[in-house]
Amino acid sequence: MTGTPAPSLSPLAPERFPEMRPVPGVRLGSGRCGVKQASAKLDLMLAVFDGPAAAAGVFTKSSTAGAPVRWCRKQLRNGRARALVVNSGNANVYTGKTGDDAVRAMASRTAELVGGRAEDIFVASTGVIGETLPVDKVVEALPGVHERATPDAWRDAAVAIMTTDTFPKGASVETGIGGAPVAITGIAKGSGMIAPDMATMLAYIFTDAAIPPGVLQSLLASAANRSFNAITVDSDTSTSDTLQLFATARARHPAVARAADPALRAFREALDAVCLDLAHQIVRDGEGARKFVEIRVTGARSSRAARRIGLAIANSPLVKTAIAGGDANWGRIVMAVGKSGEDIAETGLDIHVGGHAVALAGAPPPGYDEGPVAGHMAGREIAIHVDVGVGRGGATVWTCDLTHGYIEINADYRS
Amino acid sequence: MTGTPAPSLSPLAPERFPEMRPVPGVRLGSGRCGVKQASAKLDLMLAVFDGPAAAAGVFTKSSTAGAPVRWCRKQLRNGRARALVVNSGNANVYTGKTGDDAVRAMASRTAELVGGRAEDIFVASTGVIGETLPVDKVVEALPGVHERATPDAWRDAAVAIMTTDTFPKGASVETGIGGAPVAITGIAKGSGMIAPDMATMLAYIFTDAAIPPGVLQSLLASAANRSFNAITVDSDTSTSDTLQLFATARARHPAVARAADPALRAFREALDAVCLDLAHQIVRDGEGARKFVEIRVTGARSSRAARRIGLAIANSPLVKTAIAGGDANWGRIVMAVGKSGEDIAETGLDIHVGGHAVALAGAPPPGYDEGPVAGHMAGREIAIHVDVGVGRGGATVWTCDLTHGYIEINADYRS
Repeated sequence: MTGTPAPSLSPLAPERFPEMRPVPGVRLGSGRCGVKQASAKLDLMLAVFDGPAAAAGVFTKSSTAGAPVRWCRKQLRNGRARALVVNSGNANVYTGKTGDDAVRAMASRTAELVGGRAEDIFVASTGVIGETLPVDKVVEALPGVHERATPDAWRDAAVAIMTTDTFPKGASVETGIGGAPVAITGIAKGSGMIAPDMATMLAYIFTDAAIPPGVLQSLLASAANRSFNAITVDSDTSTSDTLQLFATARARHPAVARAADPALRAFREALDAVCLDLAHQIVRDGEGARKFVEIRVTGARSSRAARRIGLAIANSPLVKTAIAGGDANWGRIVMAVGKSGEDIAETGLDIHVGGHAVALAGAPPPGYDEGPVAGHMAGREIAIHVDVGVGRGGATVWTCDLTHGYIEINADYRS
Repeated sequence: MTGTPAPSLSPLAPERFPEMRPVPGVRLGSGRCGVKQASAKLDLMLAVFDGPAAAAGVFTKSSTAGAPVRWCRKQLRNGRARALVVNSGNANVYTGKTGDDAVRAMASRTAELVGGRAEDIFVASTGVIGETLPVDKVVEALPGVHERATPDAWRDAAVAIMTTDTFPKGASVETGIGGAPVAITGIAKGSGMIAPDMATMLAYIFTDAAIPPGVLQSLLASAANRSFNAITVDSDTSTSDTLQLFATARARHPAVARAADPALRAFREALDAVCLDLAHQIVRDGEGARKFVEIRVTGARSSRAARRIGLAIANSPLVKTAIAGGDANWGRIVMAVGKSGEDIAETGLDIHVGGHAVALAGAPPPGYDEGPVAGHMAGREIAIHVDVGVGRGGATVWTCDLTHGYIEINADYRS
């Protein structure tokens, strides 16, 4: 209803926005279209491809997905993109037919500017749900943003897609395919409604590699599984979650025809690293986050079971508040594992916090000293390891603590 | 680690502890055994049955259930009880073999006092997980508590099982079977780790009806489904959740042999009412709760689907913080329905808040005025109705808002 003051910078923020390698064939523009209430804020981002780029995407599984997500899913069948346009401040979700019209208007105007078909334009909106998007403002601002697009405007692009984020998120690596250098550069935004399938967020990754859409899709889905689908802030799933990867084919390397191609090994690892880096940044900017928590689960029936156990811990409000309070209350970890419903050893769990055993075979170790554990819990980076003792399945998930800041941000948010 | 000041009384607390009908054949005692850090607090409760009572029980589904729950599940096979003993301040969960020994010690000492077998004693512990229960303190305090047991000491019994509860919870009705008067009187405690299957809590209900254990179990399971399994505070499931019903057979009524017996209709309804009353009190004392929220879901594929949708809304931190802030941000309800994964109408949801339409067929109604909705959201009792438009399944669930109080209580809790 009323605007809240901008939350202060997350204490877990990286020291600086990283150096971002330009991606041949990609230009970025951003601007102010006035959808965000604070009119001084960047709220429109455009990525233009110099020619048709291969496109891949992973979207929210929500049954109330927004109009932009439905549009993108449909266009993805062509596997081809000429541009990406994103506004922040309004999610264009649950806005009826006007919502679909707004997406089409954004796509059509962008297509005119870049010289393509509306069907080759990907569109996203992020912000408040259920309010009509003032699409005229977006459309009017597009020509200016298009004109100003340059290959190095990554930081502004990352800022323009932010909602309650306290810092812009970027990651960039140089890798190679068959000896030819290839860049992978991406931006993302969080920072509430973050839970797997998808983590609630927008993330856009660009590369100059020449990879066909089907292969690109396979690489992206695999990378997402170990990164964006392994983080959670508050267990809520957005109606707008989007992860996309665009490949401009400007790099000169031998053709690749399948995801398992050995020539793609370095690329796959680099893509995984960019995804994980952006996913961690989203957790580090979780609403109200003051601690970054890594939860490693081993000894489960399968890696799927391990991830479920990890997420049960990561999503437990009681675990997250204990971490916020620096309280070495590992009993709540036991509780959370129990509610996951997954198999665990009859003799009980082994639990380590910061490398210190707090429970072995279902009970505190003899002579358990809480001191070192409390010391670890007082820090900013918390490491929890649970072995459930029934198999060889393992998984790692990441989350943040649940603090007063989360309540403050969300008890009165309408950007 | 350190003690926190007792949270102040929930603003949703009932005006007074209700009048509690004595249940012929039941005597209650309570006392201070010093398990709770604040030694002035009641932390031990004993219910003694004058003869063998029929017993029914519903327990946590957690795979890390505590030693007391495992004991009770086992003894329930006999369907017979001579006494119930409960300590608060320590959950006796994840304490290894010493935990099992502690349960047996409590049961044995109680059996000596009431003159029965240890197998006929039900035991529960509630409080911190993973710390050894100082069972000697409990055992030493038992004789005094047993001596002081009286038929009307319900309030002290309700107080003695509290942990972070801010008020004692009781409910009592008089009903009848075949013309004979029958009393049903129960007590309960919450108030964190509250989520279905089971709601994290202890609840004990007593009646003088003469009902065989199998029938009693069926009646209790059915009542739990519509009450304790339809509430949630924070989605966390305790390792100690316990709901039990004891019947002393002191009432003089015709024999009943099955749960569907028409003679049991009034009793069933009365039992349902007592369970619902206690369940609502648990929500009203949810940690940090300032608003009581009823969520009704209709039009679902099944009542099971409706309940899943209801709980997705009730467990969403973003919905709960919006309610805390009195923010009529119904977009978050759309989000929560979406993440439930259940079928919804393609045309979209109908959502009413406080009786006012905020979305019809997936979009705000023409001329939508937020005023009356904001007025309703400013109150203490929030009513949300979602029709998903695909079937005839319906369910109602209850929750509370998510506030700073929850964080305060849980960021540093070890009672």
